[in-house]
Amino acid sequence: MTGSGGAIGVRRGEEIYITPSGVQKELMEPEDLFVQTIDGKSIATPPAFKKLTQSSCTPLIINSFLKRKGAGAVVHAHNPNAVLISLLYPGKEFRITHQQMIKCTYNWQLGKNNKYFDELVVPIVEGQPEEIDLAPYVAKALEDYPDTSCVIIRRHGMYVVGPTWEKTKLMLESFDYLFHIAMQMKLYGLDPTQPPQESSKS
Amino acid sequence: MTGSGGAIGVRRGEEIYITPSGVQKELMEPEDLFVQTIDGKSIATPPAFKKLTQSSCTPLIINSFLKRKGAGAVVHAHNPNAVLISLLYPGKEFRITHQQMIKCTYNWQLGKNNKYFDELVVPIVEGQPEEIDLAPYVAKALEDYPDTSCVIIRRHGMYVVGPTWEKTKLMLESFDYLFHIAMQMKLYGLDPTQPPQESSKS
Amino acid sequence: MTGSGGAIGVRRGEEIYITPSGVQKELMEPEDLFVQTIDGKSIATPPAFKKLTQSSCTPLIINSFLKRKGAGAVVHAHNPNAVLISLLYPGKEFRITHQQMIKCTYNWQLGKNNKYFDELVVPIVEGQPEEIDLAPYVAKALEDYPDTSCVIIRRHGMYVVGPTWEKTKLMLESFDYLFHIAMQMKLYGLDPTQPPQESSKS
Amino acid sequence: MTGSGGAIGVRRGEEIYITPSGVQKELMEPEDLFVQTIDGKSIATPPAFKKLTQSSCTPLIINSFLKRKGAGAVVHAHNPNAVLISLLYPGKEFRITHQQMIKCTYNWQLGKNNKYFDELVVPIVEGQPEEIDLAPYVAKALEDYPDTSCVIIRRHGMYVVGPTWEKTKLMLESFDYLFHIAMQMKLYGLDPTQPPQESSKS
Repeated sequence: MTGSGGAIGVRRGEEIYITPSGVQKELMEPEDLFVQTIDGKSIATPPAFKKLTQSSCTPLIINSFLKRKGAGAVVHAHNPNAVLISLLYPGKEFRITHQQMIKCTYNWQLGKNNKYFDELVVPIVEGQPEEIDLAPYVAKALEDYPDTSCVIIRRHGMYVVGPTWEKTKLMLESFDYLFHIAMQMKLYGLDPTQPPQESSKS
Repeated sequence: MTGSGGAIGVRRGEEIYITPSGVQKELMEPEDLFVQTIDGKSIATPPAFKKLTQSSCTPLIINSFLKRKGAGAVVHAHNPNAVLISLLYPGKEFRITHQQMIKCTYNWQLGKNNKYFDELVVPIVEGQPEEIDLAPYVAKALEDYPDTSCVIIRRHGMYVVGPTWEKTKLMLESFDYLFHIAMQMKLYGLDPTQPPQESSKS
Repeated sequence: MTGSGGAIGVRRGEEIYITPSGVQKELMEPEDLFVQTIDGKSIATPPAFKKLTQSSCTPLIINSFLKRKGAGAVVHAHNPNAVLISLLYPGKEFRITHQQMIKCTYNWQLGKNNKYFDELVVPIVEGQPEEIDLAPYVAKALEDYPDTSCVIIRRHGMYVVGPTWEKTKLMLESFDYLFHIAMQMKLYGLDPTQPPQESSKS
Repeated sequence: MTGSGGAIGVRRGEEIYITPSGVQKELMEPEDLFVQTIDGKSIATPPAFKKLTQSSCTPLIINSFLKRKGAGAVVHAHNPNAVLISLLYPGKEFRITHQQMIKCTYNWQLGKNNKYFDELVVPIVEGQPEEIDLAPYVAKALEDYPDTSCVIIRRHGMYVVGPTWEKTKLMLESFDYLFHIAMQMKLYGLDPTQPPQESSKS
């Protein structure tokens, strides 16, 4: 992730670690993280001389931890595939089915991963001028879609929330992979929501 | 290969080494491997405190070693190009001819690599809800296509089996390359099974 | 950046550091930089035995520092996306709106970054046989578009100028990202200058 | 370059260094190189215990040094863009004009690089079953096109020959870049041989 690439929040018990704003994340040091409770009480901040500021994603990260009890990590990314999917799907949802990578996505209501033949549904909320303006929309999407680990932000990117940081990293890759597959399917005139045809079965 | 990226099995004499389930393979240590015989007798397992579990690909990897005597390695990958090829070819086979990279693919019946002007045929089996459900289909494909080093799993990925790990790695890259070429050919309205026209020959 | 990948100029007070011509930039050492004032007075040159020559971009880099008071860095890149955008937009401007990455681009007239719902306008100047021939066109574009941090050179690449090297690096990535999004939008028949439709709003 | 990725020959005075067959080039050691004169006299070979064999490209590399007096390096690559260009251009030539990267390609007849507004012409020869069968065709193309630093092999890859290894590496990247641009232009219905329209000039 580069300086413009988004933000990461990780939870360990009562402590939530959040990356600062606008840093080159590959050059970041542990002391650069902001640490707070879910109620917003600050536990630690970067040394003052570093002049680091809180990520504008902080309210959205906290929101995600509030809406998903037991979440261990939240990642916000500006991946081009999420932006393009939001443009190719002008409605309120992205849907895809019968893909192996669906099995890497966590279903928060079932408390386990989705299955190969499930139809994965990812809500899409409208982009907003400021990150902070997104907070109520992302919160509402997490409420309206209690299954989902991902919310797409139109013309902006996505939020992914998972039970551990390892699974969240894996889902980040998996959602991006599924968006890539869906984009290519559309390019070739195929429908990502269409299950395999009987005629093609062995 | 990331945590969701598949599995690798390598054979040295009677010992078969198989990567564990769901680990970040770039962070894996030698002791994390499961070691067993082809008959399923366990030789070594990762230390218990690591809480690693056997890959769900294990039966398919063992199957591949059974169906391809002399095989040194089996790799299972979730490469997007294999998934997309399986969507662009709704039938039971992928075919391509007159490509240099065909020469990097091993023909198990001939005991040597395929040739430039051969038509490479790769069987495609249907994706299944669970990895274990794939085992009979992959085994049957390896029987029905005794030449092939590769089986494509629709909407899922591919299995590649080769005589040594070096050649298997090379084939992994070569099949992915050929899938990429075929996808691009289709995008431009070209047919990957069509040999070069006489008129274009020098 | 490879040897053909462009040039970088960084300003610290009166000193302007410029990469030499045609070197493999990943192998470059600090002493390989040319250092001069904005008036063209040489402060330091690479050791003679290295036989390095000044970048043909030097006048364009100096020009950019002259036209953008307070600029800390100028980067010239031959990124394929800039070339392709210049071919897809045969007129004198590239335009895109309602994209998160627009917020990473600096508006020199406002002295702050552009906003999500702004229409970003990037001038395009014609490619010329020699880098030096471009200088007056790039200078004029920076005058005619006092907002812009980027000038696209048709069939050639782009210049990006920012207040600090960190922000310039970020903009380099952001403009390339926006060009990628616009190219993909065009491929799918979407118009990058079209704001989101009311009907798709939540 | 991976094990299937091609071959490299570098000339220093009378000595020509050629990479061995089928090795993972990123793991190669200096002693793995075959060294010979242009007349085919062996100067050094890898240690016997390594069981390395001469590259099947050796005659083509030597040929290139014979046809291009003063050449310092020859590279053979299986880059997908060269293969795809050979499929999109079924005739005997690839042509492109008015591109900055043309300036990175060396014109052997002029003894200097091509210019921005030149029409770059790269000959395409038919793929052959064996590398050795290509030798006369590549030699003839280098004769028939005395300017060219590149020969495309249909459905196979390309040979690039340059005055030094640094310039050859740069050309390898530049030809691949130009092929990428041309492929994209074709995808969007643009003609790579068409100079910029007057109407679009500033």
